[in-house]
Amino acid sequence: MSPNPLRNDEDRRLPRIAGPAGLVIFGVTGDLARKKLLPAVYDLANRGLLPPGFGLTGFARRDWNADHFAQVTKEAVQQHARTPFRERVWRQLEQGIRFVPGEFDDDDAFDRLAATVRELDAERGTAGNHAFYLSVPPSAFPLVCRQLARSGLSESEGDAWRRVVIEKPFGHDLASALELQSVVESVFPGDSVFRIDHYLGKETVQNLLALRFANQMFEPIWNANYVDHVQITMAEDIGIGSRAGYYDGVGSARDVIQNHLLQLLALTAMEEPVSFDPKALRAEKEKVLSAITLPEDIAAHTARGQYASGWQGGEKVKGFHEENGIPADSITDTFAAIRLDVNTRRWAGVPFYLRTGKRLGRRVTEIAIVFKRAPHLPFPLPDTVELGENALVIRVQPDEGVTLRFGAKVPGTVMEVRDVTMDFGYGHAFTENSPEAYERLILDVLLGDPPLFPHSKEVELSWRVLDPILQHWESSSVLPDAYRPGTWGPPSADEMMARDGRAWRRP
Amino acid sequence: MSPNPLRNDEDRRLPRIAGPAGLVIFGVTGDLARKKLLPAVYDLANRGLLPPGFGLTGFARRDWNADHFAQVTKEAVQQHARTPFRERVWRQLEQGIRFVPGEFDDDDAFDRLAATVRELDAERGTAGNHAFYLSVPPSAFPLVCRQLARSGLSESEGDAWRRVVIEKPFGHDLASALELQSVVESVFPGDSVFRIDHYLGKETVQNLLALRFANQMFEPIWNANYVDHVQITMAEDIGIGSRAGYYDGVGSARDVIQNHLLQLLALTAMEEPVSFDPKALRAEKEKVLSAITLPEDIAAHTARGQYASGWQGGEKVKGFHEENGIPADSITDTFAAIRLDVNTRRWAGVPFYLRTGKRLGRRVTEIAIVFKRAPHLPFPLPDTVELGENALVIRVQPDEGVTLRFGAKVPGTVMEVRDVTMDFGYGHAFTENSPEAYERLILDVLLGDPPLFPHSKEVELSWRVLDPILQHWESSSVLPDAYRPGTWGPPSADEMMARDGRAWRRP
Repeated sequence: MSPNPLRNDEDRRLPRIAGPAGLVIFGVTGDLARKKLLPAVYDLANRGLLPPGFGLTGFARRDWNADHFAQVTKEAVQQHARTPFRERVWRQLEQGIRFVPGEFDDDDAFDRLAATVRELDAERGTAGNHAFYLSVPPSAFPLVCRQLARSGLSESEGDAWRRVVIEKPFGHDLASALELQSVVESVFPGDSVFRIDHYLGKETVQNLLALRFANQMFEPIWNANYVDHVQITMAEDIGIGSRAGYYDGVGSARDVIQNHLLQLLALTAMEEPVSFDPKALRAEKEKVLSAITLPEDIAAHTARGQYASGWQGGEKVKGFHEENGIPADSITDTFAAIRLDVNTRRWAGVPFYLRTGKRLGRRVTEIAIVFKRAPHLPFPLPDTVELGENALVIRVQPDEGVTLRFGAKVPGTVMEVRDVTMDFGYGHAFTENSPEAYERLILDVLLGDPPLFPHSKEVELSWRVLDPILQHWESSSVLPDAYRPGTWGPPSADEMMARDGRAWRRP
Repeated sequence: MSPNPLRNDEDRRLPRIAGPAGLVIFGVTGDLARKKLLPAVYDLANRGLLPPGFGLTGFARRDWNADHFAQVTKEAVQQHARTPFRERVWRQLEQGIRFVPGEFDDDDAFDRLAATVRELDAERGTAGNHAFYLSVPPSAFPLVCRQLARSGLSESEGDAWRRVVIEKPFGHDLASALELQSVVESVFPGDSVFRIDHYLGKETVQNLLALRFANQMFEPIWNANYVDHVQITMAEDIGIGSRAGYYDGVGSARDVIQNHLLQLLALTAMEEPVSFDPKALRAEKEKVLSAITLPEDIAAHTARGQYASGWQGGEKVKGFHEENGIPADSITDTFAAIRLDVNTRRWAGVPFYLRTGKRLGRRVTEIAIVFKRAPHLPFPLPDTVELGENALVIRVQPDEGVTLRFGAKVPGTVMEVRDVTMDFGYGHAFTENSPEAYERLILDVLLGDPPLFPHSKEVELSWRVLDPILQHWESSSVLPDAYRPGTWGPPSADEMMARDGRAWRRP
């Protein structure tokens, strides 16, 4: 029992506070800004994590002025913020609110934005530190980046910094991702580009790392000797809603597997990083992503589907082809499942099954480590028919937590073993609230703390995994399977598992 | 995923029913008979696990007859049975009730008992199968055994069987245990002697075996590579009550460690048996018991205590020396703690700490496997001061179950790891009721199913472990430490752990 090697005198648990800075949001009139970004900025201010002279600038096509944008922001905050509305905090924040109207191809607008940013530096003390949040369609990324370069906004002076935030999807396939990357990184250096995968809150990543590496008892069995397979699921119970314009032609594999599920896979399968330094962590994730191989027979080991019309939660719901804006012949997948292998000493022979979909049984994201059966059961007369495999299930959302499934004896005069579970829930164990994902993401951008944002190399490696599958599907004569709303996907997904002698969990 | 190798067509989950048999209880007027044995016999009958012609004979000094004994039994059943009273079941059982009054040195009484047993064979069809339950002080064992031999009661004919049941303590030290053994086994063959340790219900043993060997995920970390130490605790919150006559001169180490805690240690530390066949299981337990070594400095690695007077549960309670029947200079331990090592490849270097005591903080029996810290914590700025060791705690009683303690990230913007627990409770997970320990024990005696009763060799090996410690204590000039009621024992127990850089759990 050695003393804790990490204990030191400085209390590292104090939250870090952003230094002088401004945030410029492009696409500030959109849903994301109103429901998530603006409330998150206020919540950070309310928690005392923003500097008093913080600048918040909106940029959009609308003919608004700063007062109107402030009004819109206030309403968004009052409606969607997680912390209570406090007039004093709001007034402080309001003083730093600016608005610049304009189109992305309007040079003048960007010059006015540059002037606004200079004015904030002078009046609010933002010290030349500015982050540009591109809450805009990916197709607009190149243009906005070029404008930021042309107007000098991307250039920092002295110790000041300029950073850019982009949201997934990072491209449409490998080629377009590489192109996007080259445009963005021609304007901003790699470590000034923050890729936000809002599904993958830093909290989730850190929970996973803490579980694996702060404990002694999981890591020894975290390998091919003991693990039979891994299932990573992100299921939604809603349809595409009003997002047909974005969703059609993209689909669930590009939308979720390419970024979110492959990141979860990397975090689950990686070796212990030397430290949580961004480079060290990224190096381990990249090693895993590089070691992924696809099954030889892609058709047999993948599945895709489209939700049909039907009933869900007592309500009649539209099929994918009936959604507004979806062509009747769309082959976009709303469900995708794939099998991957990770060819490392640790994981060789252990398949990783990834699946995602809309209109599934319930909203859940989880990583299930399913262990092999015990190699031998020494019981004389047991009935172990109700004994399955041991499993460690990490619930990412909702109800973040961990569940362990194992076999226990059924009470009584005979030896019968049955599966039972034990459970840990973050919500029950801690009184602390998880910060909203966007709060953490914005704070990390302002702090320049990139360890958990996917790096361009990871984006590239993920597309290298997905591209052949997408190409196979596009060239295949087999169309996506229909599945009923509220189920766990099309029959082909179950068949794909049955071929390997396994079955999907019903989370 | 291979099919379950143990599945077969016969449903092995059906309970087994005792064949024709009679049970003779010596000491039938005692507390144990009234509160436990007689109600357990009724409960077994009520569950349909006894044959219709079952015989139940009481033997005691009192001048009772069968009718009076039946009346006493009926009252005991109505007061203490776990299953509802059903007149039909009772009437069936009552017809087989007999009583033989007598002293243990009265040859005539045993001859009358022999006649009664023959009469049951003739009238009730007990077929010559009889078990003799010696619910009497250990000092009476030899005399009763000799009388059973003299009167021919220990002799079985043809396929019929005769069995003897003795309760712990099995001797007072190694020499007396060997003597007792030789007396008992000169009358009954080894496999007809059933040693009952009522603390160690078969249910507990089977739970432990199922947990360890039906699962894949525990056994890989169940060894010195990962385990720092093991703590086995049996704590009672009551004093000695009216048992001064039994307890003085015996004490907690002889009463609990010699049998119960060393059995739990053996089940925790043993290798997987070839099967649950009694011989195979016993062989593994004996290997562990043989591999135990004592610390060289016994004084430094053991502790003993006596409870002082004080307050417990809002009530003023007597100290051990003030209990009726305890001499003021008694050095009998009411608390004992010892450190043992198990010199096997699996456990070398992992201390096993055993403790038991009366008037402790609460009633609990548990086995805690305490793991080492992770060899390395890669967190950049964690405060892991609240991170302890991982632990797997098997609760034997009350609230049988399993608790797992591990580290999880505290929600929030900084990386802080803290201990959390997840829990499984048999009571919550299963609707099935655990049978009362004595029901199982009596049924197993009637079925001749000895796998979980400690064998004489185990008793002998346990005394070999405990004897040097008892001798050290008896010759020591250091008297037992006093401890306050409701605490977890004397200061010397904490010091003993502190010397090893460890601490007792507060269960």
